[in-house]
Amino acid sequence: MAECRFRFANESDCRLILKFIRSLAKYEKMEDEVVATEELLREWLFEKKKAEVIFAMDGEEEVGFALFFHNLSTFLGRAGIYLEDLYVRPSYRGKGYGKALLKELAHIAVIRGCGRLEWACLDWNQPSIDFYKSLGAVPMDEWTVYRAAGKGLLELADLS
Amino acid sequence: MAECRFRFANESDCRLILKFIRSLAKYEKMEDEVVATEELLREWLFEKKKAEVIFAMDGEEEVGFALFFHNLSTFLGRAGIYLEDLYVRPSYRGKGYGKALLKELAHIAVIRGCGRLEWACLDWNQPSIDFYKSLGAVPMDEWTVYRAAGKGLLELADLS
Repeated sequence: MAECRFRFANESDCRLILKFIRSLAKYEKMEDEVVATEELLREWLFEKKKAEVIFAMDGEEEVGFALFFHNLSTFLGRAGIYLEDLYVRPSYRGKGYGKALLKELAHIAVIRGCGRLEWACLDWNQPSIDFYKSLGAVPMDEWTVYRAAGKGLLELADLS
Repeated sequence: MAECRFRFANESDCRLILKFIRSLAKYEKMEDEVVATEELLREWLFEKKKAEVIFAMDGEEEVGFALFFHNLSTFLGRAGIYLEDLYVRPSYRGKGYGKALLKELAHIAVIRGCGRLEWACLDWNQPSIDFYKSLGAVPMDEWTVYRAAGKGLLELADLS
């Protein structure tokens, strides 16, 4: 890879986005948890605009993607970018596309006036942890995310 | 507290929101990290609309707040709600306002078609951990958040 080109996804890319989401989930050993559909992605990404997707390109081919949205830091008083999914096709790994996608997101964050770029990593995924640390990222070791979902969310909302 | 009333914050509430943010940061022993200003909150909350705030009310008095934004789960293919800050004034603690705020957010999540409610908790904050687990929340123990910020973000963006 000489220099990586990027493009923002549009509504016609939902099939490919879903394919990448499933491939990443398989790598994370969580394929069974994917209930997303093309229709849902169309609704939440392109109608309700709750997240954005950029593709890393090799010529006309999409070789990887980053799905991200804005979070907000109350300490900084400004938004950040949260990277939800980062994926590069297996045959294109080790060529710098993952790093290029992260650097592009950092660039977008700075341009938009955001104070942070954040993402989560599975604790057993040592290759990724090493990669992220080599890029200067700092683990938020002191914090754990708590989640209410499905039945638990309905119960909390008194709607079960 | 019999039944808690809530109201969404508006632009004229930035001073109070900042006061609550600072009070929470002090409790988290991170007061020095707060660089937010009323002006920044006005810009990012009410012009760019990157997050929302609800207040828990005791009559006409705001006794606590929740600041939240939408994230997106690629597994679910739909948005979630991420609670960034939850705070109740010390003299109103132990009366159920924190729980009421969380339940209200769960309700908003369900009404908006979201699949999850999530938030982060400091690992040493055992009272909060116990409280969250009592509400049915599950810790995402396998995941750690990585962050590029400040100089690290600029370097990653090749802009340092």
